[in-house]
This record gives sequence, structure tokens and C-alpha cells, in this order.
Amino acid sequence: MLLSALLMSVGINSCLCVLFFILYSVLRKQPRNYEVFLPRRLAAGTSKRRRNKVARYIPSIKWIWKSWRPSEKELMESSGLDGVVFMRMITFSLKVFLFAGIIGVFVLLPVNCFGDQLTVIDYADWSANSLDLFSVANLKIRSPWLWVHFGAIYLLTAFVCCLLYFEFRYIALKRIEHFHSSKPQPHQFTILVRNIPSSDGSSVSDTVDRFFEENHLSTYLSHVVIHRTSKLRSVVDQAKKLYKQVKHKKPVKKTPMRFFSRKDTPEGHYERVLQELEQNIRLGQAEVSAPGKEVRAAFVSFKSRYGAATALHMPQSINPTYWLTEPAPEPHDVHWPFFSASFMQKWLAKILVVFACLLLTILFLVPVVLVQGLTNLAALEFMFPFLTFILSMKVVSQIITGYLPSLILQTSLKVVPPIMEFLSSIQGHICHSDIQKSACNKVIWFTIWNVFFATVFSGSAFYKLSVILDPKEIPVKLAVAVPAQASFFIAYVVTTGWTDTLTELFRVVPFMVSYIKRSFEPSDDNEFVVPPMRYHRDTPRVLFFGLLGITYFFLAPLILPFILLYFCLAYIIYRNQFMNVYAPKFDTAGLFWPMIHYTMIFSLVLMHAIAIGLFALKKMELATYLLVPLPVCTLLFNEFCRKRFMPIFTSYPAEVLTKRDKEDRNDPKMPEFYNNLVSAYQDPALLPLRFSGSRNDSLTSPLLSSPEV
Amino acid sequence: MLLSALLMSVGINSCLCVLFFILYSVLRKQPRNYEVFLPRRLAAGTSKRRRNKVARYIPSIKWIWKSWRPSEKELMESSGLDGVVFMRMITFSLKVFLFAGIIGVFVLLPVNCFGDQLTVIDYADWSANSLDLFSVANLKIRSPWLWVHFGAIYLLTAFVCCLLYFEFRYIALKRIEHFHSSKPQPHQFTILVRNIPSSDGSSVSDTVDRFFEENHLSTYLSHVVIHRTSKLRSVVDQAKKLYKQVKHKKPVKKTPMRFFSRKDTPEGHYERVLQELEQNIRLGQAEVSAPGKEVRAAFVSFKSRYGAATALHMPQSINPTYWLTEPAPEPHDVHWPFFSASFMQKWLAKILVVFACLLLTILFLVPVVLVQGLTNLAALEFMFPFLTFILSMKVVSQIITGYLPSLILQTSLKVVPPIMEFLSSIQGHICHSDIQKSACNKVIWFTIWNVFFATVFSGSAFYKLSVILDPKEIPVKLAVAVPAQASFFIAYVVTTGWTDTLTELFRVVPFMVSYIKRSFEPSDDNEFVVPPMRYHRDTPRVLFFGLLGITYFFLAPLILPFILLYFCLAYIIYRNQFMNVYAPKFDTAGLFWPMIHYTMIFSLVLMHAIAIGLFALKKMELATYLLVPLPVCTLLFNEFCRKRFMPIFTSYPAEVLTKRDKEDRNDPKMPEFYNNLVSAYQDPALLPLRFSGSRNDSLTSPLLSSPEV
Repeated sequence: MLLSALLMSVGINSCLCVLFFILYSVLRKQPRNYEVFLPRRLAAGTSKRRRNKVARYIPSIKWIWKSWRPSEKELMESSGLDGVVFMRMITFSLKVFLFAGIIGVFVLLPVNCFGDQLTVIDYADWSANSLDLFSVANLKIRSPWLWVHFGAIYLLTAFVCCLLYFEFRYIALKRIEHFHSSKPQPHQFTILVRNIPSSDGSSVSDTVDRFFEENHLSTYLSHVVIHRTSKLRSVVDQAKKLYKQVKHKKPVKKTPMRFFSRKDTPEGHYERVLQELEQNIRLGQAEVSAPGKEVRAAFVSFKSRYGAATALHMPQSINPTYWLTEPAPEPHDVHWPFFSASFMQKWLAKILVVFACLLLTILFLVPVVLVQGLTNLAALEFMFPFLTFILSMKVVSQIITGYLPSLILQTSLKVVPPIMEFLSSIQGHICHSDIQKSACNKVIWFTIWNVFFATVFSGSAFYKLSVILDPKEIPVKLAVAVPAQASFFIAYVVTTGWTDTLTELFRVVPFMVSYIKRSFEPSDDNEFVVPPMRYHRDTPRVLFFGLLGITYFFLAPLILPFILLYFCLAYIIYRNQFMNVYAPKFDTAGLFWPMIHYTMIFSLVLMHAIAIGLFALKKMELATYLLVPLPVCTLLFNEFCRKRFMPIFTSYPAEVLTKRDKEDRNDPKMPEFYNNLVSAYQDPALLPLRFSGSRNDSLTSPLLSSPEV
Repeated sequence: MLLSALLMSVGINSCLCVLFFILYSVLRKQPRNYEVFLPRRLAAGTSKRRRNKVARYIPSIKWIWKSWRPSEKELMESSGLDGVVFMRMITFSLKVFLFAGIIGVFVLLPVNCFGDQLTVIDYADWSANSLDLFSVANLKIRSPWLWVHFGAIYLLTAFVCCLLYFEFRYIALKRIEHFHSSKPQPHQFTILVRNIPSSDGSSVSDTVDRFFEENHLSTYLSHVVIHRTSKLRSVVDQAKKLYKQVKHKKPVKKTPMRFFSRKDTPEGHYERVLQELEQNIRLGQAEVSAPGKEVRAAFVSFKSRYGAATALHMPQSINPTYWLTEPAPEPHDVHWPFFSASFMQKWLAKILVVFACLLLTILFLVPVVLVQGLTNLAALEFMFPFLTFILSMKVVSQIITGYLPSLILQTSLKVVPPIMEFLSSIQGHICHSDIQKSACNKVIWFTIWNVFFATVFSGSAFYKLSVILDPKEIPVKLAVAVPAQASFFIAYVVTTGWTDTLTELFRVVPFMVSYIKRSFEPSDDNEFVVPPMRYHRDTPRVLFFGLLGITYFFLAPLILPFILLYFCLAYIIYRNQFMNVYAPKFDTAGLFWPMIHYTMIFSLVLMHAIAIGLFALKKMELATYLLVPLPVCTLLFNEFCRKRFMPIFTSYPAEVLTKRDKEDRNDPKMPEFYNNLVSAYQDPALLPLRFSGSRNDSLTSPLLSSPEV
């Protein structure tokens, strides 16, 4: 790609940035857009709908200041530790790329520029210069200047590792602190038990009672057996929907009620329909609750956190596939539909999902190959000769090489997070947070593999396969292929990166949906949903730019300022969104951090592999050998971090649990808490519903709040 | 190798077998050999020293019958579950190779023989026929007979997997049963805690007390802090040795006592020396026990097994590298010297040991290359032309190709188990059984790698390295190289395998040592040691023959009868040794089984890889593709077994623990047991010693019994 094409991209996107910023500052002030841009504040009642007509149309940048201001403590209160972890990922990247950017722009870039491998830069005609002149490709074989790059790699690795260590420690401590400051919560006292063996003659409930009274007598409190309620749930959902419509006095569709007498008053009529539904639900509940219809799983609650942890950690049964324990999720976080899976089913589902992911990865090569065709205009002209005329127009060719490729890639990447979320949901996870964590992991690796590696290796599946099977050659092949794609990824950062954050700010899809909805039916003040943050969509995206920055750090330092700008944008915009848009849906207390840590380590090792290959290509034998200890040490460092911090992220230690238990002993609210605990894990579909008569109680009771709200 | 050379080998070794059997039956009846051949029965007092001179010199085979007879229960009582597991490994192999042998000899061998790839067998001159005529190499490319091999591979895999499943289940149940029937033992109530953090001002003992009283109040009983006693231990050992000499009224070497008055009676003199030593030890003990000199580790005992398990499984500290818990070994199994290692030291030691093992593997290639030179006479003649005359003699060449190679390999393999045991001992394991387990694992992989792969790939280190780095080629390379070594491994089974078991029976080294000892000093009835079984030496050996049998099952079925014979010999001889020679030194309750299981799975997958390569070479595309699911399924089966059975081998489940605890509640002996528990884990070097005065007490007290006895 030529410098002019890059400048074109930067130009288009800078303009878009300014445009969107201005548009946003105006649009967010329009009362009817509050539901899209400020749903959180609207729900909290802190944002009054202003009627001042003039100020509403004047663009301002006050919102930037507002999203800059809040401290981490305030963020913690409003978005939980997960929000803090997400923001710390961005500040961590900012620190890394500030450091890398200074080295890259002020040391590596000049060194690269004054190399003489390629043609000397013609300062009169910048636009004609290839971006390769700014990359390490411009240094000759055995050039002593390469030692500068060598030093820079060691320096950056040391810096990132130090930062990773302190960050991991900080978040681990925050996690403990968060636990200490939390109120007693049902999931702290509860575990989920699966694969309860069937004992002849007695129900699941009796079996659970007998087992835990025998083996954990001193701490066992109560349990809730899980039922197969998928069918019932659909009836309940239907009833709720109907009730909502009735409540808002909307015309109910006539079809199901045509058979009832038409002479009723509308109220009397709805009342009767609801009674009918209620009756149906009650029958369904009785049927589902009947003995023999249970799933062989139960939520078991204990008198103390220590007791729950004891039962959680200890192997329970002589047959280790029975009485499997896992920590219970928060009650509103439970993913009810997938409890029926047995040990074997879960295991097979996992294997199937792995295969599905592999298949998706291979299918996804189609758009990647398409993108690669676009960056290579000559190949495109060769394949489609009739395009020659259009492609010969300078503007068209620059737009095509500079903008279109990443746009296509970007659009097809949009579908990946929902697919991965679906795959994770059928894998047998018991709660929404686990599903998101698992999906996040999948999306990270999918992005790295399908965007980075597939692009680098020009999208040939067979080529990729041969590389896996020949690991010795990997560094050299990477060192040949990765620098060749530098210009593509610089364009990718400028286009995808920048527009991504702006789309996030602008909430394009919800905005359009809300606009269309409003055009068809009048707005209803009470009926809007505060959306949850989709970590599995945004975390991999941010991490991928970190990976790009680290791998291209010494290859093409020109990428660094753009990446730095991306993280600045992301910092402002995500803070704004956490404050105004997203409400936390669950609280994993920072469980996303280890994933971020591992991805960073992977980025470092990938950089080392490329560096080793590059130094081998440049015939710097000594430097090549001196680089080998670096990935080894990085992996050992990672192993150390894993041993040092990971246990805190899997479960809370005895020390912390007993301390909290002791504090509770003097709490006068505990008896009430224990009373609620017994029923906290009731399946919402099995709770008594009462629509008829009073219209405003049951639906708003806390136990009925569906996880989507 | 020619058939005649093989027959030569078989001849020599059959003669040796008969000779050794006869010799053994005579030698074991000689009273002065009882200490070598029947130490166990001698120690138990069940073998009286017969004086009947005539019967002593008549060979008999009664001992075979005697070692055949005992049931598994009797074996369990005399040698523990570990002995049973070892014997079950042999019976398992017998079953596998009986099945494989029937298929191999009656189906595969005829199919191979009547192939026509190589020259037709000249029935008149058997001795001139190459062994390759009996192998799969004799079948033509695309021969339909290869489908017989295909079926045989599937059949054997299914058979072995079924057997493995039932065996794993059987041993897991035995383990639980063994626990149920065991008396209350200190290690069931105790855990080892390492990396106790230093809190300023208080001793380790106080820190432990405070921590466990705070976090495990209801179950905590007591603790024993560990001290750094390596120096003290050497003094104690010296004293014990001296005391033993005195006790047996042997002349004590004069050197250390020359400075004392010479006019004493011998008794008075020794008494004084012992008093001196006692004084020294007491001073040393006081010094070591002083506060601030402790190792930051302690044995912590609990009131119940359930309590100990709770503390064992639960993460303890906010910093996961502190308060590390692991199950305590049996008191007499503790390996005292290596308690000083910290978390980091242990980790680094582990990494270092891995590197040491790698180095050893590379160094070991020297004898392997030498062996390979011998099987290849032409190469040898080329390298050392002066040998041509000797090598041209038929007998010499047959001995060299048939017998010498495996003898050299064998001898150099003898040094591996002790080296591996040493490496494992510095790795930071806390007990002798863990050290043996770890050493056993190392020896298994070392044997497979250095005997199997190094031989197969002709001992070139660089060649081997290139194979790892090119995994796609592995099956084909194996399929070329493995069948080529068939004759070597057949000879290996006949020579090494058979003589190995005979050496085991004959206890060559101890026998010679005892003989030499007796020639120099008159025998002393009370001074013999019942040796422990060295599982890390014998298990890998037996397993390796299993691996050979499985991999060569379809390549060269001629190996199977010899392997079957080997296992028959091993069955008789090891049973005999368990009854008469080895006393159990520790009780891991079957922890060696998982290793055996994994090695079998590895053998199967290796066979599949070779088969895939072979079918690819024979251009059987369909068969090649149809074989690919087999290793995948085998690995999935292994994963299932791991999930299903492994947890039982890592710790006992709550169900079992509470049941035993309940039984104990009514046991009148428990208060006494708790009293002993408090001091069970005292370091023997710190116990009060009293030599002077009474001569027959302290040394025989159970707490002083050193782990070697």
C-alpha cells in the first residue's frame, strides 16, 4: 500500500470521528434518544428529560469531560469489578503503547527510515512512497542497526511483564477486597450439585438430604432440586407478555380470544384470559414438580461460606462422576434451560462444540480470502479483466486498497460473537457469566487465528495446515509473511479500530431499531431495557489491537501512534458507555482478567517468534540465539503468575471465608437471609404467578425478575 | 537377523533358564542363603533353618507350586495393594498377549508367511531364512490380506480397552476397600503444610496454631513443626552404628578412641564413648529445636479424616503460594532431608530435573549407537577391518548379532533407575513412595524413548529431533523404521526379558554381596535386612515388554509367543519374590496403576500410528483413513477413564471419610490413638536417644525405626 492510500484512510476516518462526535453530542441531548444513549441514567432517574429547545442543538464536548472524571471507585460502584477490569485492560494497553510508541517512533522509525535496503525516499513525492520504507524491511542483511531492534524487544518484554505482574496482583487484591465488602449473597452459601445418583425408591430431594446430612451434617442447610421447565417457561413467557400488553392497555390480538363471548367489557375479557393462562401454568407447574420428573441436579445451601467451600472442594462420591460440585452462580445469573445434561452429555457437547468452532474457522476463510484479493489489485484485475477501467481510477483504487478490505472483514466478524455465545450456551454452562466468559475466550482465539494468521498466510487453509505440521519453520515463515501485511494492518487499525469505537459510542443498531420502532408506534416511557455490556464482543476486539501493536512494534513502528490513538478513543468512549448505557448483568468479580493476561503473553511470544525468524533471515546468528531465552523466560513468568494468582480467581481461600463468616455471626439480619436463601434458587417458572385481580404486584417481585432485565 | 541366530538365542536362554531354576531350587535350601532368598520368611520366623543335609542338594520344583498357590487376598495381606497392582499388571499382560498371541500365531503369521513380497521360503534350509518372511513386510502392496491385519488391530484395541476399563475399576474399588478395612493411621488425619508465612515476632509453631485455630477451629488437633536436621542426622546415624557394633560385641575401630584412657575394660570404655555421643546429640537437638531454626513447614493433625481432607482441599491463603497443603505420607515413609525447599526452590528444582533427564537421555545414546553397530555386522567390519576374520566365524557372528547387543543395552539400562531415583529425590518430594512413583514414571519414558525410539531410529540424535519437528511424517517414518528392527526386538525379548526375570529370581548382586561378606566375616543371625520391592525398577521393565508386544503385534507376530513366555516367567518369579523376599516399605494403595494404564494407552496409540504409516506405505488408502478414528477413540476412552477413576487415586471422597470417622467414634482405642498422633510425625533425629546404661530399649522403639527397615 502506498502512503497516500494510508493518508486517505486516516483522512476519511478522522473526518468520521469528528462527525460522529459532533452528531453524538447533539443526539444524546434529544429526549427521545435518552433510551438509546442514556438508558442507565434514565433508569436510575438521574437524567431528567430537558425541554430547553435551544441548548439541545448546540454541539458540545462536555460529555468527554464527564466520562473522563469518575474515579475507579465510582466505576466500581456503578459497573462492578468486571467493568473496572475492562477499563484497566484499556489503561494497561495505553501504558504499554505509550512506552512502545516512544521507543518505536523516536528510535526504531528513524533507524528504519535511514536504512538503505529499499530505494531511497524521495522527499518530494511522499504519496508515492511505499510504507515498507518505514519498516524493518528497509534494513540490510547483517545491518548493525538491527541490534537496536534487539534491545527494543528485550526492553518492551521486560516492561510488559512487569506491568502484567503488578496488574494481576492489583486485580487479585481487588477481588478479595470486593468479596470482603460484599453483603451476604445466596451464591456465596450455595453450591450446585450435578449427577445425583438415583437410589431406588427415594426421590432426588430425599437422596440429597440423606447424602448431605450424612457427609456434611454440621454445615448443611437446605436444597432446591432442579426441574425440567423448558416447556413451562414458554407458557409463562407468553402469559407475561400478554399481561404486559394488558397492563399497558394495548389492544390484545384477537386470534386466541375469538372463541370467548364478544360482548364482554375489554377488562372482564382480559381478566378471564389471564385466569385461563394462570390455570394452565398452575397445572404445568404441578406436573413438572411431580416426583420422578426432576433433573438429577440441585442447588445445595450451607450455613456458612466455609461449609459451602468445604463441600465444593472435596470429592464427594466413590464414583467421581456422581455428586459433581461447582460453585453456584448468582440466582439471577442462572441459565435454566441446560440443566438436563448428564456427565457424558456435557462431555460430548464440549467435544462437539470444539468441532463446530473448527468448522466455523474454516468457513470463515471465505471472507478473509476475499479481503486479501482486494488488497492485491493486480490479482483482482487479472481475475476480473472488465474491472480494469474502474480500478485504474486513482480514488477508487485507493478506497479499495485502503478502506474496503477491513470493512468487509469487519462486517463478517460482527456475526462471530453471537455464534460463539450460542455455541458456549449449548456447552452446558450453568450461568450467563460462564457462557460469556467461554464465548469471550472463543472469540479471542477465533480473531487471532482468523484475522491475524489467516491474513498473514494469505488465507490458504492448506498452507496453514502445513505450517502447523512443520513447527521448526514457523518463525521464518512468520518473519516473511507478517511484515508483508504491515500496511494492511495499519489500515485495519485506522479503519476498523477507529470506526469500531465510534459505532460503539453511537450504538448504531439500537439507535436504528429505536428510530424505526418510534416511527411505527408511539414511545412508551416505562418500556425500555438497560442493556448489559457484552464483554465477549468487546474484550477480544480491544485485545486484538493490543496483539497487533505488540507484534508490529519492531516490524513497522508506524502502527504505534494509530494504536495509541485507538486506545485513547476507546478509553473515553467505553467509560462513557459504562456510565450512561450499560448496567452490569452479573458479577464475576474480575474473572475476565486471566484471559487478558494470557492473550498478552501470547502476543509477546508471537513477537519473539517473529523476531527470531527475522533475525535468522537477516543472518544475525548471535542475535537469533540470544533471543531464544526470551520466549522461554516469558512462558516461565506466565507459569509463575498462574501459580501465584490464578487460585484466587478460581475460589476464595479459607482465610477470607472464615473472616466473613465471623463478621456475619453478629449480623442481626442473618436469620432473615437464611430464610430467603432456602428459596433463592427456585426456578422462576415454578414460582406462583397471579395476574388476575391485582395487576401490579407479582411481576415486579424480585424473585421473578428475569435475567434479561 | 537369520532364523538360526534367533534359534541360537532361544537355545542359550532356554538352557540358562533351566540351569538357573535348578540352581535356585538348590541354593534357596541352603541355610546360609536364607538371608538372600527367603529374608521375609526368615524375619517372620516361618522358615526354620533346616539341617537335613541330603534333601538340601536335590533340585525340586516345589517352590513354583508354592508361589503359584497363594490367592490375591493372601498377597494383599503380605505385600499390600501395591504388590497386588504389580501382579495384576502381569496378569493383565498375560490376558492381553494370550488373546493377541492366538490371533497373531494362528491368523497373522500364516497370512504373512504365504505372502510373496520377499523370496519364497526354502523349506529345506530354515536356518538361512530371514525373520522378515514372518512379518508383514512379506505382503505385497495393495494385498487384500492386509485387511486381516486391519481387523486384528481393531479387535486387539477393543479387547485391551475393555480390559483396561475393568482393571481400572477393579483397582479403584480395591483402593476404597483397602481404606475401609485399614486401622486408623496417622497419615489419614494429617496434612503437610508448606510455605508458612513468617509473621513478625511469633514462631512458626505459634503462627500455625493461630492460623488453624482461626480457620479450622472445629477440627484442628495439633501440629509438629519441621526442623533442619540433616547435620544432626549424620551424628545420630554414627551413634547408632557405633551402638550396633557395641551391642554385637565387635571390636570398635580404635582411631576415634585412642585419646581415651587405654586401661578401661572394653565395656566401660564403650559406655563412656556412647555417653559422649549422647551428650553431643542432645546438644545438637537443643540447637536445632531453638526458635528461629525451624523450616517453614509443619505436619498438622486433625480430629477427623474429614477435617484433614477439608483443610487439604481448600485453598488456604490470600497469597496462594503460602500455606500450601498436601496429604501427609505415612510417618515412616517421610523423606526428611528435603523439607527446606521453598515454593520457588521446588519449582526451579523441578525445571532443573527436567533438563537433567533430557541430558541423560542424550548421553545414553552412546551405548544405543554401539548396540546398533553390533546388529549391523557389515558396518562393523567396515569400521574395524581387522575383525573380519573373527566375524566370519559363524558362531561368533551369531552370538554377536543374537545376544551381545541386548546384553550391552541391558547393562547400561541397569544404571538408569538409581539415577532417576536420585533425580526424583532432589525434586522436593516429601516421601519415599512419591520419589519411587516419580522415578518410575521417569524410567518408563526413558526406556520407551531410549530403547524403543532410539533403536528404531538408529540412534541418531539429529534424526530424532527432525522427526519431532515434522509430526506429519511420523507415522510413515515409524512404519519404515519399526518393522526393520523386528528381529532385534525379538532377540531382546528372548535375551533381556528372560534373563531379567532370572536375575531377579536369583538376586545376583545381593547373592554375590552376601557371599563375599560371609567369606570375610562370620555371619550374624540378627543382622540382615528384608529388602523392599523397587517398583521404579521393575514396573517399567515389565511395561516395556508390553509395549513391544503391542507395537509388534501385527508387524511381526513371531514376537508374541516369546513375550507370552516372558510374562509366564515373570508371573511365577515375582509372586515367589513377593512371598519370600520383598517386604512392603510403604503403602501407596495402588497409586502405581494409573501409570500402567497410561503406558498401555500410549502403546496402543503408537501401534495405531505405525499401522497408519504402514497402510499408507502399502497404498491402502481406504484402510489408512478408516484407521484414523481408532487413535482418536482410544484417546477419548483414556480421557473418560481419567475422569471416571483418577479422582479416586488422588484423594478419598467425603462419603468414605465420614463413614470411617463414624466407625471410629465408638472405638475405645481412639483417645490413645490421638495421643500418639500428636507425636507421630516427630523427626526421628530429634527423639531422645539413650544408649548408655540399658542396651536393648531405645533402638527398637517403633518411633525410631528408620525407613530402610
